[in-house]
Amino acid sequence: MFPKNTWYVACTPDEIAAKPLGRRICGEAIVFYRGEQGQVAALEDFCPHRGAPLSLGRVVEGKLVCGYHGLEMGCDGKAIAMPNQRVRGFPAIRAYPVVERHGFVWVWPGDAALADPAKLPSLAWADDPEWAHGGGMYHVKCDYRLMIDNLMDLSHETYVHASSIGQKEIDDVPATTTTEGDVVTTSRFMHNIDAPPFWRMALRGNHLADDVPVDRWQICRFHPPSHVMIDVGVAHAGHGGFEADAAHKAAAIVVDFITPETETSIWYFWGMARHFQPQDEALTASIREGQHKIFGEDLEMLESQQRNILAHPERRLLKLNIDAGGVQSRRVLERIVAAEAAAAAAASAGVAAEATAGASAGAR
Amino acid sequence: MFPKNTWYVACTPDEIAAKPLGRRICGEAIVFYRGEQGQVAALEDFCPHRGAPLSLGRVVEGKLVCGYHGLEMGCDGKAIAMPNQRVRGFPAIRAYPVVERHGFVWVWPGDAALADPAKLPSLAWADDPEWAHGGGMYHVKCDYRLMIDNLMDLSHETYVHASSIGQKEIDDVPATTTTEGDVVTTSRFMHNIDAPPFWRMALRGNHLADDVPVDRWQICRFHPPSHVMIDVGVAHAGHGGFEADAAHKAAAIVVDFITPETETSIWYFWGMARHFQPQDEALTASIREGQHKIFGEDLEMLESQQRNILAHPERRLLKLNIDAGGVQSRRVLERIVAAEAAAAAAASAGVAAEATAGASAGAR
Amino acid sequence: MFPKNTWYVACTPDEIAAKPLGRRICGEAIVFYRGEQGQVAALEDFCPHRGAPLSLGRVVEGKLVCGYHGLEMGCDGKAIAMPNQRVRGFPAIRAYPVVERHGFVWVWPGDAALADPAKLPSLAWADDPEWAHGGGMYHVKCDYRLMIDNLMDLSHETYVHASSIGQKEIDDVPATTTTEGDVVTTSRFMHNIDAPPFWRMALRGNHLADDVPVDRWQICRFHPPSHVMIDVGVAHAGHGGFEADAAHKAAAIVVDFITPETETSIWYFWGMARHFQPQDEALTASIREGQHKIFGEDLEMLESQQRNILAHPERRLLKLNIDAGGVQSRRVLERIVAAEAAAAAAASAGVAAEATAGASAGAR
Repeated sequence: MFPKNTWYVACTPDEIAAKPLGRRICGEAIVFYRGEQGQVAALEDFCPHRGAPLSLGRVVEGKLVCGYHGLEMGCDGKAIAMPNQRVRGFPAIRAYPVVERHGFVWVWPGDAALADPAKLPSLAWADDPEWAHGGGMYHVKCDYRLMIDNLMDLSHETYVHASSIGQKEIDDVPATTTTEGDVVTTSRFMHNIDAPPFWRMALRGNHLADDVPVDRWQICRFHPPSHVMIDVGVAHAGHGGFEADAAHKAAAIVVDFITPETETSIWYFWGMARHFQPQDEALTASIREGQHKIFGEDLEMLESQQRNILAHPERRLLKLNIDAGGVQSRRVLERIVAAEAAAAAAASAGVAAEATAGASAGAR
Repeated sequence: MFPKNTWYVACTPDEIAAKPLGRRICGEAIVFYRGEQGQVAALEDFCPHRGAPLSLGRVVEGKLVCGYHGLEMGCDGKAIAMPNQRVRGFPAIRAYPVVERHGFVWVWPGDAALADPAKLPSLAWADDPEWAHGGGMYHVKCDYRLMIDNLMDLSHETYVHASSIGQKEIDDVPATTTTEGDVVTTSRFMHNIDAPPFWRMALRGNHLADDVPVDRWQICRFHPPSHVMIDVGVAHAGHGGFEADAAHKAAAIVVDFITPETETSIWYFWGMARHFQPQDEALTASIREGQHKIFGEDLEMLESQQRNILAHPERRLLKLNIDAGGVQSRRVLERIVAAEAAAAAAASAGVAAEATAGASAGAR
Repeated sequence: MFPKNTWYVACTPDEIAAKPLGRRICGEAIVFYRGEQGQVAALEDFCPHRGAPLSLGRVVEGKLVCGYHGLEMGCDGKAIAMPNQRVRGFPAIRAYPVVERHGFVWVWPGDAALADPAKLPSLAWADDPEWAHGGGMYHVKCDYRLMIDNLMDLSHETYVHASSIGQKEIDDVPATTTTEGDVVTTSRFMHNIDAPPFWRMALRGNHLADDVPVDRWQICRFHPPSHVMIDVGVAHAGHGGFEADAAHKAAAIVVDFITPETETSIWYFWGMARHFQPQDEALTASIREGQHKIFGEDLEMLESQQRNILAHPERRLLKLNIDAGGVQSRRVLERIVAAEAAAAAAASAGVAAEATAGASAGAR
């Protein structure tokens, strides 16, 4: 259960730098590589000749050459050439709309006719030199919605991430959740508290005292299909918190792109875009290291939660106040998936009607 | 196919000393831990909030705290508290009857209303300072009845355990098997033979000569659901064998508790209670080490036997004289499982009758 | 889908030298060992007593002794003895026709009544001191026909084995394929080319210059059920190529026996019989080493091709000119399998007719 007529992050550019990348996305086995002008390309990972995965091949002058018998594919999924063989009649394989933007490769796994680059998210921080971004990727065996739940309810930090970003005050301050259109926002503001270890490190990274009371904020924003951007940070207390002047705070965005591999597994692209000391590469590395450890703590929980849910299909989970972010996000997703299904049904009914009309016409 | 209204060994106390233990027993995913007064508790391993395994949580002042969002469970399966949240309406999870006795934690995976600590086996050696006990546990991928067969027919020792407890004479002396009520006994007595290596070690451990002829005995007792206690030992020949005075023998009980995990896997708790030199801890360690190796030799055989049987469902196995112990034990188990099924059917018929009566009454 | 009334390579003699070997062949779990006179024996790997795999047992004076309770099996699948037990009434297990020849153990997994050693392939090189043979075995998770395709179309060498036996000229020269009876032959002859690295090594091994132009040949012969013998070699250019005098060439046969384990996995016995310097054991080792590496390069391709095909059952693969060898081999196999099925149907119809006749007779 996921939208297919939408853009998902497929990979980062470094993953296709040396050779083609085979990756299953929304159930589709896809090969990603760079074509003739260096543009990204995405094809069905299935050579029409004998079914070999094209991702085991190599790219020669922008053509994807099958690693088994040398069939050359074009970026449009049509065979271009093969040694000693005419390829004109070869069946084409599927080509997926794909765009490189904001430091990521994006793929549209659904109906190519509907793909529109204008629907790609705009990420202001991505191309702004005042921001620095670092991150990584985890493969996690869980429904992508469990990861959305996780990110839209940060009360778990107190328990799962007790030694880094968790703190008692998260439990004490309720979050508020709202939905506007397709965007769900869950916010929590904590005042005059001690910064937890991760944020002390960040304060020091911004040359600020780490042993004074701070205001801390978490503003989680879900955008369909599965992007969760979280404004996070701490400011020295009394300077306005989230609104404080840059000189008094360490502010960043937790960047989460969750791409379904199957119904119960994901490619989870995580990272942090920070709005301070963007030139400090050692700081970028420290933050990436910290996030890598923190987000790794969620994996066992999410995967065993998934196993438990699959083993107890009859059980209904609770939807508490703290779950509002995930619950409302799922509601948005249900609406989108239902609309996709309705559009598909209408399209095939239209085709059927045309076919009937055609048949009647023919019968005259 | 196993009784559920009965006590099984779930774990040993050391397994719940540091943190909660998640273990599947008779198909039920259960978390074991110690409650407020230090008493053992057993709950369904499923947080009613979002399905996280409670066994990933921790115990705080006797309350089991979910490791995901901090829900606190009581030993009765009812939620006690959760940060910023009223829990009164939360659905309860299942609590399993559980008792700590004789150095083990026992669980009743069936109908809690029928659980009765008086039905726990009495193990005279367990709390007697004249006896010493040591043991361990193996996870084995086989039907629990294959392990019962194994332990109720020790003729396999000659082949599987040739270098430790096996000897030719086991094959030469037939065993006799009887059933009294639910208890099946298979006995074998060998006279004036050489002791095999394991028993030489035991004789030396009891400060007895290990190079003189001995009488050896094996008295296997099956108690449902799956406990096999085996009187074993050797006495210097001519002093009465099993009945010999303690000064002339090394006598012990092989202790086996076999707990089904699924239909084709078990938690196998093995050990030895010995009735000599109980204070000699080095001897306890030597014996445990020897048993660990010996019982490990059975694993490959049992697991590949299980795979073979699953692959050939049409084949009927033979029931020879040497198999009488296992065959009669299975007969006891079939009777118990049939009685459980009949009682369950009667109970649900009773409920249906009541419901009908109620409906008729209501219709008047 | 594979013939069963035929001989397959089961193992090499060294695999049964120290202990019995359990191996699944065409879906049948079989144990191989040496009987009383040292002759090979093959039985169902299932002890009729309690289902233990006999391959976990040991051979004592030519009798296979079950490792669980000591049942002794004869090479005909009949129990011979068991401690303290009469075995006359024991059900027999299946014995498979098995022959040791040409340095391999061959098994007939189908109807034993049809097994005929005269149908074993004759391998002239196997017992000729002018030839030397070395090889090895791979377990590969693919349909055996994918491996036949691979070996009957060496155009893949250019892509999969680029650094050893592949070269551009393979693509430039088309192969020709013919079928005579059940034997399919695909040949390619290249003239006046550079020898690739593997063949330079072979030329040096035959004390010939490796830096002069050569003629190279590949003559692949498929024999059912799944033997592919490939005449390969290089000769100094202009001496007649494949027909050149031994003094000017390095000539060998790539020996491939492909034995189905299941419908989608195989035991792949590969090797090379060479017709030069047969006494040079270091050369045999070098060639084996080279082949081991080269054939290992095919594994990832074949296994991922298999996964891709299973994931896309609706897709039809192409049958190009280069695929003619595999396509024609599959046609031979289809004919053989259909004939087997027809014979089996006729046989069971005959049995039914007899049974009916018998019943009528009995009714009189």
